[in-house]
Amino acid sequence: MKTQLNFGIIGSGYMGKAYAVALKALPAVFPLSAEPVCDMLATSDAQGAAQSARALGFRRSTGDWRELVTDPAIDVVGICSPTYLHKEMALAAIAAGKHVICEKPLSLSASDAQEMADAATQAGVCTLVGFNYMKNPATALAKQLIESGEIGDIIHFRGTHNEDFLMDPTLPMSWRLKREFASSAGALGDIASHIINMAHYLCGPVAEVVGDSQIIHPKRPNANGELEAVENDDQTSFLLTFASGVQGSIEASRVAAGRKMGLTYEIIGTQGSLYFDQERLAELQYFSARDPAHLQGFRTILIGPEHPDYRHFCIGTGHGFGFNDMIMVEMRDLIEGIGGTRTLWPSFTDAVHSAQVVEAVMRSQQDRTWVAVSPAAPAP
Amino acid sequence: MKTQLNFGIIGSGYMGKAYAVALKALPAVFPLSAEPVCDMLATSDAQGAAQSARALGFRRSTGDWRELVTDPAIDVVGICSPTYLHKEMALAAIAAGKHVICEKPLSLSASDAQEMADAATQAGVCTLVGFNYMKNPATALAKQLIESGEIGDIIHFRGTHNEDFLMDPTLPMSWRLKREFASSAGALGDIASHIINMAHYLCGPVAEVVGDSQIIHPKRPNANGELEAVENDDQTSFLLTFASGVQGSIEASRVAAGRKMGLTYEIIGTQGSLYFDQERLAELQYFSARDPAHLQGFRTILIGPEHPDYRHFCIGTGHGFGFNDMIMVEMRDLIEGIGGTRTLWPSFTDAVHSAQVVEAVMRSQQDRTWVAVSPAAPAP
Amino acid sequence: MKTQLNFGIIGSGYMGKAYAVALKALPAVFPLSAEPVCDMLATSDAQGAAQSARALGFRRSTGDWRELVTDPAIDVVGICSPTYLHKEMALAAIAAGKHVICEKPLSLSASDAQEMADAATQAGVCTLVGFNYMKNPATALAKQLIESGEIGDIIHFRGTHNEDFLMDPTLPMSWRLKREFASSAGALGDIASHIINMAHYLCGPVAEVVGDSQIIHPKRPNANGELEAVENDDQTSFLLTFASGVQGSIEASRVAAGRKMGLTYEIIGTQGSLYFDQERLAELQYFSARDPAHLQGFRTILIGPEHPDYRHFCIGTGHGFGFNDMIMVEMRDLIEGIGGTRTLWPSFTDAVHSAQVVEAVMRSQQDRTWVAVSPAAPAP
Amino acid sequence: MKTQLNFGIIGSGYMGKAYAVALKALPAVFPLSAEPVCDMLATSDAQGAAQSARALGFRRSTGDWRELVTDPAIDVVGICSPTYLHKEMALAAIAAGKHVICEKPLSLSASDAQEMADAATQAGVCTLVGFNYMKNPATALAKQLIESGEIGDIIHFRGTHNEDFLMDPTLPMSWRLKREFASSAGALGDIASHIINMAHYLCGPVAEVVGDSQIIHPKRPNANGELEAVENDDQTSFLLTFASGVQGSIEASRVAAGRKMGLTYEIIGTQGSLYFDQERLAELQYFSARDPAHLQGFRTILIGPEHPDYRHFCIGTGHGFGFNDMIMVEMRDLIEGIGGTRTLWPSFTDAVHSAQVVEAVMRSQQDRTWVAVSPAAPAP
Repeated sequence: MKTQLNFGIIGSGYMGKAYAVALKALPAVFPLSAEPVCDMLATSDAQGAAQSARALGFRRSTGDWRELVTDPAIDVVGICSPTYLHKEMALAAIAAGKHVICEKPLSLSASDAQEMADAATQAGVCTLVGFNYMKNPATALAKQLIESGEIGDIIHFRGTHNEDFLMDPTLPMSWRLKREFASSAGALGDIASHIINMAHYLCGPVAEVVGDSQIIHPKRPNANGELEAVENDDQTSFLLTFASGVQGSIEASRVAAGRKMGLTYEIIGTQGSLYFDQERLAELQYFSARDPAHLQGFRTILIGPEHPDYRHFCIGTGHGFGFNDMIMVEMRDLIEGIGGTRTLWPSFTDAVHSAQVVEAVMRSQQDRTWVAVSPAAPAP
Repeated sequence: MKTQLNFGIIGSGYMGKAYAVALKALPAVFPLSAEPVCDMLATSDAQGAAQSARALGFRRSTGDWRELVTDPAIDVVGICSPTYLHKEMALAAIAAGKHVICEKPLSLSASDAQEMADAATQAGVCTLVGFNYMKNPATALAKQLIESGEIGDIIHFRGTHNEDFLMDPTLPMSWRLKREFASSAGALGDIASHIINMAHYLCGPVAEVVGDSQIIHPKRPNANGELEAVENDDQTSFLLTFASGVQGSIEASRVAAGRKMGLTYEIIGTQGSLYFDQERLAELQYFSARDPAHLQGFRTILIGPEHPDYRHFCIGTGHGFGFNDMIMVEMRDLIEGIGGTRTLWPSFTDAVHSAQVVEAVMRSQQDRTWVAVSPAAPAP
Repeated sequence: MKTQLNFGIIGSGYMGKAYAVALKALPAVFPLSAEPVCDMLATSDAQGAAQSARALGFRRSTGDWRELVTDPAIDVVGICSPTYLHKEMALAAIAAGKHVICEKPLSLSASDAQEMADAATQAGVCTLVGFNYMKNPATALAKQLIESGEIGDIIHFRGTHNEDFLMDPTLPMSWRLKREFASSAGALGDIASHIINMAHYLCGPVAEVVGDSQIIHPKRPNANGELEAVENDDQTSFLLTFASGVQGSIEASRVAAGRKMGLTYEIIGTQGSLYFDQERLAELQYFSARDPAHLQGFRTILIGPEHPDYRHFCIGTGHGFGFNDMIMVEMRDLIEGIGGTRTLWPSFTDAVHSAQVVEAVMRSQQDRTWVAVSPAAPAP
Repeated sequence: MKTQLNFGIIGSGYMGKAYAVALKALPAVFPLSAEPVCDMLATSDAQGAAQSARALGFRRSTGDWRELVTDPAIDVVGICSPTYLHKEMALAAIAAGKHVICEKPLSLSASDAQEMADAATQAGVCTLVGFNYMKNPATALAKQLIESGEIGDIIHFRGTHNEDFLMDPTLPMSWRLKREFASSAGALGDIASHIINMAHYLCGPVAEVVGDSQIIHPKRPNANGELEAVENDDQTSFLLTFASGVQGSIEASRVAAGRKMGLTYEIIGTQGSLYFDQERLAELQYFSARDPAHLQGFRTILIGPEHPDYRHFCIGTGHGFGFNDMIMVEMRDLIEGIGGTRTLWPSFTDAVHSAQVVEAVMRSQQDRTWVAVSPAAPAP
């Protein structure tokens, strides 16, 4: 007989809704060791929470997240609130013995992330950070090809995560642009953290960085139409050396005109290469130096049932894979991680590394020099 | 308070599962006038049905589809069985006053389709045929751009639907390759029907066709390893004239090496053009002759919240859209069609047209000449 | 010691200039059995011819093409005049014992083409028709891959040649749109002939066709601003069966918004596929069903020194290949064909076939049925 | 009457041949203020030079480059020898009052480049450095669009120049891998210099850099089969700040599996973006934030007669543009620069800047910090 896992989700916006959609569909998609239940939804006011809970299919709701994290029936807490609230919420959930999935970036600082990771370890609860883009079968295939030696030894990594949702300078001030609510790392913390985590996943931990970030639109109108200062970067670029000695570079932007979901990576190996672009998330470009010389070229692999996870969604190759499908893979990982049949990655502990990379980039900009990053474990 | 719609689904394979996944997630994705419930699942044996019902989240199950279609609690019947069973099942469901969604192709013949359509009309039930690819926001955008005159008057349509799932001649015989179970129209009936319906949707009904089809691999091994004759075409090509006078061509294949979901269309207008490829289902290529001459070029529009339906799935442009997301749009259409807030298209009546086009192509091949198709209504 | 070949070119427009550029550069590009010399240029008036001859680097010029074709010093005549003049010029050149390269389409009718071919055969002179796009290394590679069995047996061909140079209905009347000067085959004769010849080259002769053509913009302003009737088709589509039994389709247009040099072909085989688009003329897309299942995909082969002819232009793969480079390959073929070290293809005789296909398409449109095409030899 | 310019070319390899091909064809392509003549060819031995001169169409030849640079009939010297010879040859040619075009990189060091530039300035001769990729009409269009404000203010530049001609570790040692003959800057000097110059051309001079380079294959077999040390980098990456304050990054490699001519740039502006890839050299990707929201997307502009220079090669948009065509534009620039009707860019003086950037990157790697680059003038 199937066990159930009661989920309590904090936040009903972009990611809160995505979690709900994924949890609803999940049992029909994957065989699971436990059935997720959308039990309780918390938002900042009780009435809105009740309305959202009805819309998203939660049994219960609350205007007080503390009620949710301490509710005895809740097994797993999902944190989809603004960054500055993650720490308090996660620590409370952990203290109550809950498993936690938290949106990225995990916290306002690496030391906060470490504190959260330590608390989880001591409490013995499972954690996962919402770096959902690595849950794509195309990227899982990339990981497989790297590990099976298909491209030889990795010699270079280039990653980008460019979007343009803030390219218009007349868009209003938001919490994402304020140090207090989103840290001094703007695109660097909010966006680059995805591709940093991806680099960690695919090529191992980062040892050293040097970088530079910029605010492009320094003032934006607040709710009263007054111009307020933007307090963190719109774009960032940095060089990095992995612990393996491999070189690379990363750039990220929230003002890169035309790029909507421009998370890309190019991984060069001694025997081949991989290229991926999240805007075409169901494709992986693969070049093999072992092909006959006159037949060499990048091939576009459309993901299909031969590749990780895809067959649970559709049995036809190239029939498409979407944003919410990735979230389902993530939730499957979480449930099976809690069930002990999968390794959860990145846990809070794993995600400390991306937070440290972010801070090292900021320090390197101040000091105009390379900055070392603390050692971390590679992804399994 | 929300009304509920109890769904009974026949078949738990590819599409049966897709329906279940979509119905489970749907209420969290779209605001709906009624909440769909996965009530009963029917497959050919009771035990398997029970097992699948548990896996897919149905309340009840049966090994006898007749039980399902006559069950008083069922509001909507979904038919995901092999083609040759559609008619009997649909007529029984209609007779029992159920709304019906049926997978494509609707039936073994156009006259059967007409009989089913007539029955539904007389019974006053709602119907929908599973031409799911037209439910994609990128195609909905294409429809919008055509109607707003963005590409001027249409002058040419080229459609393809090429896949390669049968390119390997050693793959076993299946019901799809037998006249009795899938009609004499092979790729023409099973696959081309998608792009014919798409042509109908985007450019209006077809008036005349001339075509040619071929069996490429004439024998395949049956379960005993003996070679058996393939009885319908592996690939087809035909020219067509729309009722509007516009010229076009369509091709389809189940043996087109390398094409996995190669439903494509190119629509040329007097002021611009559109190009779409389902393998990159979240993109529409658009050329405008109104751009300044030195800046003209096909632009790749990534679907986003400005485009139809997408915002319900994700608020970020270009974040991806998948196969099951299309099924959700289809199910939303069905539920709202039943609720009276949307026009259902293609209903059984609408789908008679694609069946007639298929038969006209077959006749044209026998007679080596153009064959007229009965008039039909354009899509709304 | 090197022999010289004196070229006399009729016409100094688009192709006349291209011939001159190619002939000038050619000896530095390829080792040749004879050195081409730009000897004489003919245009319709003596003064303009003299001026163009200076600009393009010809030794001599004339306002009377008859003078050119009978000049004893001329070895090779290049005909770059409007179609309706080809026959008279070519017959005169052949009568004078000259080798002839003539732009496409060869003549106003298949019977004229046959007459020209017969004359050349009787005179024992070499001929070549300017189907230059088949001279591209990417297409030469396609031919190689087909012949080496890399894609198995061919089962389908789809070809297009779409351009949009006449999409604007206000563009003035020209000789290309008049029956008297360009035949009743508009896009069909002027443009489709390229892709018909390509089909012949890659897949062998055509046995049967059925097609349909249309005039989209029926009137255009003449020099006086009066509207005059367009007398031949703007777009055409037809189905074809090759002599080999392989099915296919071809379409061509001069009003296809956004397509600038849309000569494309997709050739499906039982073991793989090829796709080519002349707008990316230095690439060939290749899919191999022999690749491991999880690594299959269309690969983009960039042409390089491993492929036919390219190394004479550049030793770096993917460094680019242009329109005039194709003309150089064509001229090399011509010179070496005359020298006896290469088979010339398509000669006038070979090009009769594409003219017959064009006429069969027109007949099929009148008769609304399939029309057989006379047998022809495959390309070597 | 036309003036002639006698060219003397040193080197008959890759670029020497390209110069010859371009000079032969040029007068038929462009109207010119002077006619180039392939007068003399020098290679390292007299017999080989004579043979190459015949093959490439030079009037005279020599085994002694000093003879060439001092020959009174020579007007322009083209230097296509290995890098370590550039300085001596260029200084001798300048001393003899010749105009000079020299392949890139200009010299083994920035100070040598400065010395060469100073000599040329004092002598009053014209110079040009062979950064041919910027001569592409697609890049000329990019420059136009930037200057006309089409993408607003530039906020980010990312450039790459990745090739893989040395990815195979068994390829033999060559002069390019030795400090003495090619400097300590390997991919950085030989390849990155192209994209550095391109950045300078499009976005202005560079103010500051920090970078990192690596040798991937440290030993290669010499002619005797013994392993010898590779003495300069196989790949490099660096961040840069332009004098304008704009941020950017550059990477280059000679071991990047699958990239054949991977010179790419992405230029983000406040109102739009540009993307270019030299492997598709006849296309420019352009995104405009001024397009209506639902119609925004990167458009693929195929170069045509509306764009710079293209119409001289072909009157049909999208008909192709090749490597040798770029060299023709370069030679046209040189001839017209000498004739005084065009500004020559990059002259030796202009090219000092890219050499300084290269050295700053090397210094930054040693010092692990950002390094300033001397001010330079923007491109006209």
